[in-house]
Amino acid sequence: MRTRKILAVVMDGLGDRAVKELHWKTPLQAANRPNLNWFAEHGATGIVDMISPGVRPGSDTSHLAILGYDPYQVYTGRGPIEAAGIGLMGEKGDVAFRCNFATVDPELNVIDRRAGRIKEPDTTALVESLSGMSLDGVDIVVREATEHRAVLLLKGRGLSAKVTDVDPHAEAHIHEAQALEHEAKKTAKVVNHFVRRSYELLDQHPVNTRRRKEGKPPANILLPRGAGIFPDIQTFQERYGMTGACVAGVSLIKGICRLCGLDVVEAKGATGGLDTDMVSKAMTAVRLMETYDFVLMNVKAADIASHDMDPSLKVKVIERLDEMAGVLRERLPKDAVIAFLADHCTPIELGDHSGDPVPLIIYCQGMVSDTNARYDEGSCAHGGLGRLRGKDVLPILIDKAGRSEKFGA
Amino acid sequence: MRTRKILAVVMDGLGDRAVKELHWKTPLQAANRPNLNWFAEHGATGIVDMISPGVRPGSDTSHLAILGYDPYQVYTGRGPIEAAGIGLMGEKGDVAFRCNFATVDPELNVIDRRAGRIKEPDTTALVESLSGMSLDGVDIVVREATEHRAVLLLKGRGLSAKVTDVDPHAEAHIHEAQALEHEAKKTAKVVNHFVRRSYELLDQHPVNTRRRKEGKPPANILLPRGAGIFPDIQTFQERYGMTGACVAGVSLIKGICRLCGLDVVEAKGATGGLDTDMVSKAMTAVRLMETYDFVLMNVKAADIASHDMDPSLKVKVIERLDEMAGVLRERLPKDAVIAFLADHCTPIELGDHSGDPVPLIIYCQGMVSDTNARYDEGSCAHGGLGRLRGKDVLPILIDKAGRSEKFGA
Repeated sequence: MRTRKILAVVMDGLGDRAVKELHWKTPLQAANRPNLNWFAEHGATGIVDMISPGVRPGSDTSHLAILGYDPYQVYTGRGPIEAAGIGLMGEKGDVAFRCNFATVDPELNVIDRRAGRIKEPDTTALVESLSGMSLDGVDIVVREATEHRAVLLLKGRGLSAKVTDVDPHAEAHIHEAQALEHEAKKTAKVVNHFVRRSYELLDQHPVNTRRRKEGKPPANILLPRGAGIFPDIQTFQERYGMTGACVAGVSLIKGICRLCGLDVVEAKGATGGLDTDMVSKAMTAVRLMETYDFVLMNVKAADIASHDMDPSLKVKVIERLDEMAGVLRERLPKDAVIAFLADHCTPIELGDHSGDPVPLIIYCQGMVSDTNARYDEGSCAHGGLGRLRGKDVLPILIDKAGRSEKFGA
Repeated sequence: MRTRKILAVVMDGLGDRAVKELHWKTPLQAANRPNLNWFAEHGATGIVDMISPGVRPGSDTSHLAILGYDPYQVYTGRGPIEAAGIGLMGEKGDVAFRCNFATVDPELNVIDRRAGRIKEPDTTALVESLSGMSLDGVDIVVREATEHRAVLLLKGRGLSAKVTDVDPHAEAHIHEAQALEHEAKKTAKVVNHFVRRSYELLDQHPVNTRRRKEGKPPANILLPRGAGIFPDIQTFQERYGMTGACVAGVSLIKGICRLCGLDVVEAKGATGGLDTDMVSKAMTAVRLMETYDFVLMNVKAADIASHDMDPSLKVKVIERLDEMAGVLRERLPKDAVIAFLADHCTPIELGDHSGDPVPLIIYCQGMVSDTNARYDEGSCAHGGLGRLRGKDVLPILIDKAGRSEKFGA
């Protein structure tokens, strides 16, 4: 059977609700979007509950679903995804935490949860002083992430992620990590030990001495949160017999894709911000389709406009996404299978993710077209693909690409 | 509650994709189909993922779903279905294989996998010489099937279907059956023993001596493949409290229906081929509804046209199916519940099954009709039944027939 290449275009946080400032249209309905509508007209459309109806997905769980995994089976928390996002891959059973560099007083009360939004090169020097540690037989790895963020990885036997956050998420005394199950006692002990050591090593560190002189808050402790055990995920290639690559600006998406065994490729000018070069991303995705069977690209900008609760900004971002879709319309291989969707809705009115279904287009040659020729939340709800679950989308793309296994004879 | 009779009309491989030669219509859209459209107009329509979205069903797993069973729970492989297809019913735990009569040289290299497409009466005599065997405490049953095909049934304790094929599926040395789990060692030993014995008994058999004189390849070995353990399927009648019958020309469908405890009834002129007498099948189905609560009829012809990748032939077959639907429209009991559907799509462009959903009509008195009046893939996608799973169709029919159990009070 002839096989086709697959491209999934994830427009982060694209879906929305009716917005008063837009005369009760959604931003997608309000935007000029000739190219997305072209794909809707010539493909088939539907709506997708990433997890199940009404469940609010994170970008991590929704991308797991888009990659065909059941998030309830493989999602183990944020820590390992953050670690993988900065390229720190643990082994099955290792436990990872997101951390903040923070400022505490000598009684360990938090003064500033982000240590004045400290960033490199200061964080680089601080992280160095914490590396190579071993506590209670557990190897400690610390890596800096974006700005005041870092990742803590515990490597050893008998670890558990069932421990509470040290970060009090407020200006309050730091918390003790508590074991939520008997098997987590060792892990909680190591975490608490590490946090005390981080204070001892960082408080009088030359970087912090300098920062105090400059009137900046010292980054004199690391506060772990979001423990997660490294999952034992069957790789994308083992699971589907396809090679896969990801183009994304955001660390979280890179992390998810790396955990699933996709290659993460950087596109020039892709920032994960509002200033990202979407056309560069699209061109990179098209180029990757020459060598990979499956490419996922994520563009974050619409989600950012939603978190900023700015409807006209979101409309403008969507019109840029439509131009990007126009580039794909011109440049895609003629026999490719392409899906346009969002990972979740981020309604302007909430400034956060919602559990609303997202609009979907699937386009390839030979599609039985439906009567819908518009790409938006309301129109796609009448599309011929009906209402799908997130993890059912990839099997459809795989089947359209002539790559599915027959079940039975 | 007054109960109604149920008829499920399965048009094998009917669903398709947009076909260039048909001006990007599907064969169903291109066909003249007044009767199927009449049922669509007066009934309700939808689309069905036989297994789940994008999963390519076999005809066996899809018919299990149409009969309301979860194929993932009851499908154990092809062997038992082939056995049941020729009326050889094993008991739970017996292991069945599909076999080919083949031609091998004295070193057991396969010369012709089908022994010159040998058929009865030669196969009848050869099978007789293999019957009544017992090897390592396991009773051996061999039955001829269509042409060069046969079925091997192992009856005994401690058998397993986790053994590899002896058939090399090529002109190569025959394979040894290998155990894929410890518990399968005995089964593999028996299979290998049987294959050697088949060569010893067949090579100098008078039928083969005669065939050699006639310049025909001798059928001097049996090559088993596709091992499957006889499943412990709750019968249709136990499960639903309904008697059931099946009208089908194809052995595989008969096998599935027999495994589920349906009576298999032959219709005059029903061949399972393109030349089948569809009207005869429909008349037989209508007659069976006098005595049975549920009747499934399968017509294979559209699937054959698709495997031949012949769009205009498929359109013609569909127009004959529509005439058959016209006969049903005239002859069906007025209060019957009838479903028209396919077991899977077989797109012309693939010449094989795909994971696309199939179009469905459910028609009976009292249906809330939807806005769709056409029976095809695109129109039914907008039908009022929405997008269903295969195993959910029968419960709907049972409920429409006034035969469903109340869950709760």
